[in-house]
Amino acid sequence: MKNVALFGAGRIGRIHGSNIAGLAGVTLKYVCDPVADSAAQLAAQFGATVCTPEAVFADPSIDVVAIGSPTDTHSDLINRAAAARKHIFCEKPVDLSVPRAAACAQAVKAAGVACMIGFQRRFDPTFSAAKERLLRGEIGVPEMLVITSRDPGAPPAHYLKGSGGIFRDMLIHDFDIFRWILCVDEGDEADTLYANGSVLVDPEIAKVPDIDSSVVTIRTKKGRLCQINTSRRAAYGYDQRFEVLGSNGMLQCGNHRPSEVVQSDASGVHAEKPEHFFLQRYREAYRLELVHFFECLQSGAAFRTTIDDGVAAQKLADAAAQSLESGAVVRL
Amino acid sequence: MKNVALFGAGRIGRIHGSNIAGLAGVTLKYVCDPVADSAAQLAAQFGATVCTPEAVFADPSIDVVAIGSPTDTHSDLINRAAAARKHIFCEKPVDLSVPRAAACAQAVKAAGVACMIGFQRRFDPTFSAAKERLLRGEIGVPEMLVITSRDPGAPPAHYLKGSGGIFRDMLIHDFDIFRWILCVDEGDEADTLYANGSVLVDPEIAKVPDIDSSVVTIRTKKGRLCQINTSRRAAYGYDQRFEVLGSNGMLQCGNHRPSEVVQSDASGVHAEKPEHFFLQRYREAYRLELVHFFECLQSGAAFRTTIDDGVAAQKLADAAAQSLESGAVVRL
Amino acid sequence: MKNVALFGAGRIGRIHGSNIAGLAGVTLKYVCDPVADSAAQLAAQFGATVCTPEAVFADPSIDVVAIGSPTDTHSDLINRAAAARKHIFCEKPVDLSVPRAAACAQAVKAAGVACMIGFQRRFDPTFSAAKERLLRGEIGVPEMLVITSRDPGAPPAHYLKGSGGIFRDMLIHDFDIFRWILCVDEGDEADTLYANGSVLVDPEIAKVPDIDSSVVTIRTKKGRLCQINTSRRAAYGYDQRFEVLGSNGMLQCGNHRPSEVVQSDASGVHAEKPEHFFLQRYREAYRLELVHFFECLQSGAAFRTTIDDGVAAQKLADAAAQSLESGAVVRL
Amino acid sequence: MKNVALFGAGRIGRIHGSNIAGLAGVTLKYVCDPVADSAAQLAAQFGATVCTPEAVFADPSIDVVAIGSPTDTHSDLINRAAAARKHIFCEKPVDLSVPRAAACAQAVKAAGVACMIGFQRRFDPTFSAAKERLLRGEIGVPEMLVITSRDPGAPPAHYLKGSGGIFRDMLIHDFDIFRWILCVDEGDEADTLYANGSVLVDPEIAKVPDIDSSVVTIRTKKGRLCQINTSRRAAYGYDQRFEVLGSNGMLQCGNHRPSEVVQSDASGVHAEKPEHFFLQRYREAYRLELVHFFECLQSGAAFRTTIDDGVAAQKLADAAAQSLESGAVVRL
Repeated sequence: MKNVALFGAGRIGRIHGSNIAGLAGVTLKYVCDPVADSAAQLAAQFGATVCTPEAVFADPSIDVVAIGSPTDTHSDLINRAAAARKHIFCEKPVDLSVPRAAACAQAVKAAGVACMIGFQRRFDPTFSAAKERLLRGEIGVPEMLVITSRDPGAPPAHYLKGSGGIFRDMLIHDFDIFRWILCVDEGDEADTLYANGSVLVDPEIAKVPDIDSSVVTIRTKKGRLCQINTSRRAAYGYDQRFEVLGSNGMLQCGNHRPSEVVQSDASGVHAEKPEHFFLQRYREAYRLELVHFFECLQSGAAFRTTIDDGVAAQKLADAAAQSLESGAVVRL
Repeated sequence: MKNVALFGAGRIGRIHGSNIAGLAGVTLKYVCDPVADSAAQLAAQFGATVCTPEAVFADPSIDVVAIGSPTDTHSDLINRAAAARKHIFCEKPVDLSVPRAAACAQAVKAAGVACMIGFQRRFDPTFSAAKERLLRGEIGVPEMLVITSRDPGAPPAHYLKGSGGIFRDMLIHDFDIFRWILCVDEGDEADTLYANGSVLVDPEIAKVPDIDSSVVTIRTKKGRLCQINTSRRAAYGYDQRFEVLGSNGMLQCGNHRPSEVVQSDASGVHAEKPEHFFLQRYREAYRLELVHFFECLQSGAAFRTTIDDGVAAQKLADAAAQSLESGAVVRL
Repeated sequence: MKNVALFGAGRIGRIHGSNIAGLAGVTLKYVCDPVADSAAQLAAQFGATVCTPEAVFADPSIDVVAIGSPTDTHSDLINRAAAARKHIFCEKPVDLSVPRAAACAQAVKAAGVACMIGFQRRFDPTFSAAKERLLRGEIGVPEMLVITSRDPGAPPAHYLKGSGGIFRDMLIHDFDIFRWILCVDEGDEADTLYANGSVLVDPEIAKVPDIDSSVVTIRTKKGRLCQINTSRRAAYGYDQRFEVLGSNGMLQCGNHRPSEVVQSDASGVHAEKPEHFFLQRYREAYRLELVHFFECLQSGAAFRTTIDDGVAAQKLADAAAQSLESGAVVRL
Repeated sequence: MKNVALFGAGRIGRIHGSNIAGLAGVTLKYVCDPVADSAAQLAAQFGATVCTPEAVFADPSIDVVAIGSPTDTHSDLINRAAAARKHIFCEKPVDLSVPRAAACAQAVKAAGVACMIGFQRRFDPTFSAAKERLLRGEIGVPEMLVITSRDPGAPPAHYLKGSGGIFRDMLIHDFDIFRWILCVDEGDEADTLYANGSVLVDPEIAKVPDIDSSVVTIRTKKGRLCQINTSRRAAYGYDQRFEVLGSNGMLQCGNHRPSEVVQSDASGVHAEKPEHFFLQRYREAYRLELVHFFECLQSGAAFRTTIDDGVAAQKLADAAAQSLESGAVVRL
């Protein structure tokens, strides 16, 4: 039986809490959140206890800390968990600063604890089915990747102030997908990156300053090519697709729909919009990544998404921000 | 807090047990199954206790019995639960005999207990989305219904001996869908029924005797038309679709796929097969029907699927068996 | 070079005329139509001459007569063409009376002329691709067939007076599809037929008297099963689909769309409606059936759709009318 | 009646010849090709006469020249046709040299003749349906465009020697689509362009030297963003899609399939591959562009694809080649 302390009782914390509570052989023991009501409510729901970070790290019965608190607390909690010899599951990103993220990676390795970063998209049933087909060689060698990643609507401009910008806040997932599909099992890595972008959705976003629409091109050392297109707003909902061209074919990952009803009438043939946003689309992925985390802890197998993956995606986000600012291609 | 006793720790019992255990405000207290190991294992998994039927019915703390035991035990358990003033959730069918099923309906009404029959398809996200659109009038008045219902493979012939035949064992669900879509909210009911069928899949099935492929036509009193086609074997998996033609359009319910990956290669463009069988396709439906059951218990609202629905579907199955045997159209 | 005389310069005559004129090695020489203006206009468009039937049959330079005139002229023209030793392409049906149709079949055989009936659906790119897959054994042995055949809107009731009723006017094509898919290459034939139907679209149709919505079930001697559902009105346009279940899989023939544009917006994901009606959907089929006709004339190969096919479909239409009237199953 | 002289009796010449011959009010009078046999065969097929360029330009009865000869003859023929006061339909590109193309544009304007360039994709039923929806404002203001353009297989390396490189030979069409969708009716134009590419398909192509896989990013003056991805080889056939994100939704243009058959079997659910290559996919587009050409000649309306469009696309191709060579972003 593994005892878990959860940091964060907000939106994503509640999802992880519920998923942890539903796992066989795992107990959600503590919930930590500076917002006392949120912590109490989440703890009550799953028979856990509200706790302070200090008490969590001092309790030898705790095996695992799950970090779903705000981004700017991640690296500190990772470092303290490593120091306390707890295994770590941490929401992305490790840290908005690459050096701080890299230092975390160093710390967990030095401490010898396991640390998985929550790039939940790699656990999405559609995306992981595509990856399995790639690994089985069903389309030969992957050569080109097109990622479409659009939110249903832009957050208020003030939220974006602390977000690190679109590349670190939103495309971080797409950079991880790029590495997962074109690099990690291909002995390849990013060589050059070019980013461009605009404010097309909400002029307030320009004042942050940030952009709301972006395009990124990455070329790998072996000459593979990746294009990412992203918008903060798609009128039809959350648009999460990618397609890979390989030497023998193509894999396309489509959106998920709430139901498979199709209506035909005088105005056309109508299917439902995609699942509304990440909580719906990635509901199963959030569950599966925690199943994977505890299975790997048990078996000693490597995590699908390591802290090094977290650092690597962060570096690509930094490169994109630099390319946008300079208007030039960045060599990695 | 509602306390529940579950009858049946087999395949379907485990599904209901898991779903009951996951509900807020509901406790799975007892598990009953003559196979002691199955009962013990399921009880242990969810912190319940193994129990005898006698003790269940005698325990005043039990509010609800959930019946997922073999078909031939349903009517007896319903009657005993009604006598003990327990609310009842029972897997379909009520009973293979229409008179016994009708007697159960009488008994639960006399006892004043709530009784829902598990026609889980009405809770499938796709089917229920279609029904909601119908109720909103999106395709006008429903006129014709085509139901396709095919299993991935035929069970062994010996299983079919006790099944009551294809109409009572398999099409019972389709008869319920027919009533749900063309009758219950339309002030309509079946008027004539014609069934035909063949043994095309497995000659052993002829010796049961039973058939493995069937077609049924139902005409309602208002002249609406329904066609059902069923096979015990579809090489591509579990095929569960229906389409309704209305005065202003059509609704089609497609199959669900495990993922939305599409592979294009030299041999074509390939999507995944439908979810393998009912445990996969209706996983969410099984969960949602229990959510509905306890919500209705709480609010006093009517169940979507009553014991009268169970009796009515059974009557259509009997009519189909009679039509097949006589080769003639049956008036209901 | 083959010289052709065309009977009929109405809607379907103009289609055949245009297709004949576009064929290499074929000359549209004469056009016959009692409506002089129509005949003149069509003849002028393709460099042909207006002519009388008498002159056509007397002209030894004419090799082929193509009959696209009203239904009640077909059998007479076939008989006269056979007597004049002209090869014959005739629109369906041969005749609304089975005995008269059978007499035509006898006459063309006695005369030794070639005669093809225009069941153009067998030449539709989608339907013929499905048939080729069936013949290659891609889904094993065909077992069940579901045909959906719906017009975009009902014709005026007065038109239906002379139509022979829905089974002879509309389902004649579906009966031919049934025979083509489940019988002709399978050594099988219809054994029993059951038809039902209603007036759900337009009460005026009841006064014809006719029905506007129908369902037909056919069982073959080998136990294969076919269901046909038909309506005179589908709000979303011309709906022409069939699906075949075989021992190793299923083939589905979908509708054709004017374009492959899909629009996603706040109200859903929208594809175009099917091609509007038969002139659009079967435009290519009408062309391909004439290509086939002249290729067979040249090579001596058998037609895909013979006059015997025409008679056989007519018999099924008669059986359906009889079943509807009697309310009973008809043995063929 | 318009008399036409056709230059080029090769693959594309035969398509244009056949389409011209099928038009009402248009006569294919002359065919010119240095390969005498090709010219004779094409002329014979449509009742035309083989002719020399000199005779064509000297014949006052010729209204139109249609140019489907090799690329390096286009600009000379355009100039001579303009001098002879013939209207011009010319296959893309105008010329591989932008200055020579611009000089042609100047020449036709000075001569006052009409000149349309054959960017047939703008006449594709799917692409033009999308454009019409854009113009009707169905997805609001267009913001981002993703173009996927892949050939079924790479031509032999020696063919590529004279092609001008992948940007001038293949992406020229995609540059035109970019302008058509994001610029021409939006008062916008390209501002910066970045191109990258690799040899991933055939190492021989590197020796040309050329590339076989490319990605291009274009940003317009108003900040709209376009990504193009192209490969000389897609194992599943000719892949011709684009999607536009607008402020109120998205339009996606899918591939066309030879038929709408879908096969479901033990290995999945299989649709057909896209139409094989441009002669199949754009067969209807090639016909419609000539219908448009002669309709505009008749009515005096502006062509959908002018010689200025030809020059503009050529400039983008030059910019892409420059970006690839320099590794830098190019300002237009």
